[in-house]
Amino acid sequence: MTKLYIGNKNYSSWSMRPWVLMKQAGIPFDEVVLRFDSFDAGSQFKDAIGALNPVAKVPVLVDGGLVIWDTLAIAEYLAETHPDKKLWPQAAADRARARSICAEMHSGFGGLRGHCGMNIEASLPEVGARLLREQPEVKSDLERIVQMWGDLLAQHGGPMLFGGFTIADAYFAPVGTRIKTYGLPVPAAITAYIERVQALPGVKAWIDDALAEKDFLAFEEPYRSGR
Amino acid sequence: MTKLYIGNKNYSSWSMRPWVLMKQAGIPFDEVVLRFDSFDAGSQFKDAIGALNPVAKVPVLVDGGLVIWDTLAIAEYLAETHPDKKLWPQAAADRARARSICAEMHSGFGGLRGHCGMNIEASLPEVGARLLREQPEVKSDLERIVQMWGDLLAQHGGPMLFGGFTIADAYFAPVGTRIKTYGLPVPAAITAYIERVQALPGVKAWIDDALAEKDFLAFEEPYRSGR
Ligand SMILES: N[C@@H](CCC(=O)N[C@@H](CS)C(=O)NCC(=O)O)C(=O)O
Ligand SMILES: N[C@@H](CCC(=O)N[C@@H](CS)C(=O)NCC(=O)O)C(=O)O
Repeated sequence: MTKLYIGNKNYSSWSMRPWVLMKQAGIPFDEVVLRFDSFDAGSQFKDAIGALNPVAKVPVLVDGGLVIWDTLAIAEYLAETHPDKKLWPQAAADRARARSICAEMHSGFGGLRGHCGMNIEASLPEVGARLLREQPEVKSDLERIVQMWGDLLAQHGGPMLFGGFTIADAYFAPVGTRIKTYGLPVPAAITAYIERVQALPGVKAWIDDALAEKDFLAFEEPYRSGR
Repeated sequence: MTKLYIGNKNYSSWSMRPWVLMKQAGIPFDEVVLRFDSFDAGSQFKDAIGALNPVAKVPVLVDGGLVIWDTLAIAEYLAETHPDKKLWPQAAADRARARSICAEMHSGFGGLRGHCGMNIEASLPEVGARLLREQPEVKSDLERIVQMWGDLLAQHGGPMLFGGFTIADAYFAPVGTRIKTYGLPVPAAITAYIERVQALPGVKAWIDDALAEKDFLAFEEPYRSGR
């Protein structure tokens, strides 16, 4: 069976993307959770994942003898091996747009990623309000998200970014959890989209697991001193 | 005709990738060079590219009514629309590996990218030697490149990473120019691969144009005070 190696569900935004994609699309897999004891050389996490792939990060998909790392490569592999699941939008123009925004997420949004780390169980609206005042990059990243989602929802009429659920919704699912955790203000149409995504069975299953995890990793917690 | 919007050829490593890919694969296109006057809001560059795509970065591919941004999305689009060009490796396992390393490049190698900006015409071996001593990230990025290329060249027997020329070689072509500019020490097999890539007509054409450009952009030059 296909194996997906992931990190802590409360914290690992990159792991969340392919997990949610496969769950929601109904692609069977076994998950292997490697707890983030630390990212230092010699940590259990780094040793375990480093034995699998040279980059030593999660997620990693293992399919028979094939080891695939990096979220976008995993998504393309799944789309190619499961054409019946229509993981990318079917119209060529929509597919090109979906790939553009996923690649944009893959290398961008440094403000949101650096300052608003995923932390599904936490509620940090005061931190979010402060970051929005003090960090122009958080503000411009959020504005870009609101514009991107708003345009796509208006164009396709929802419920997801390209109509039905695709890789793009999985790619941005962790951004939705951040907007909630940090109480970042967005228009009602954006909030409604986040709610719809989080109600998808594949996404809800991840969030439920994250809430049940009850693990506190100090190095992933710049804003809390305990649970 | 398909249009590719790019930046200065001496400096714009992201622009180089799809340009080299299309040139080398023989996909016709018109190039539109937008000079990097500055990356500040209100610059000619930002205004021109921002009118085309919300991220306001190059490269951007315009194909009829379709605007595609982000290098990886452009590469996937070209692979899909030109199946005869075999832009990705043909074997599924090789293709998955090629996508893994391209996605890795897309979001990683912060040390090389941050400290060793592309600068094809420059020769900065003393800077390279100093960076290797002082910046552990530059060293570990270089080690990862040597391992990645070494493994793939050994596995496929060259001349390119996956035998024939693919997106992967285009994706790493700017890294080869950096290794040369900064005189970074690599094994002979790696130097030979860089030479082979730079001798490809599509890559040579870019490098020749970059050398003919003779533009000096102070904000892209942390190490030189003039040409
Ligand atoms: N570009 C990678 C990023 C993966 C990534 O950064 N994963 C984090 C966890 S969310 C990780 O494993 N970090 C370990 C480390 O930085 O050492 C991908 O998309 O898979
Ligand atoms: N992830 C993007 C990165 C593009 C990028 O950073 N391009 C640079 C030039 S090499 C740029 O346009 N920078 C303008 C800016 O940062 O404002 C891609 O792959 O296309």
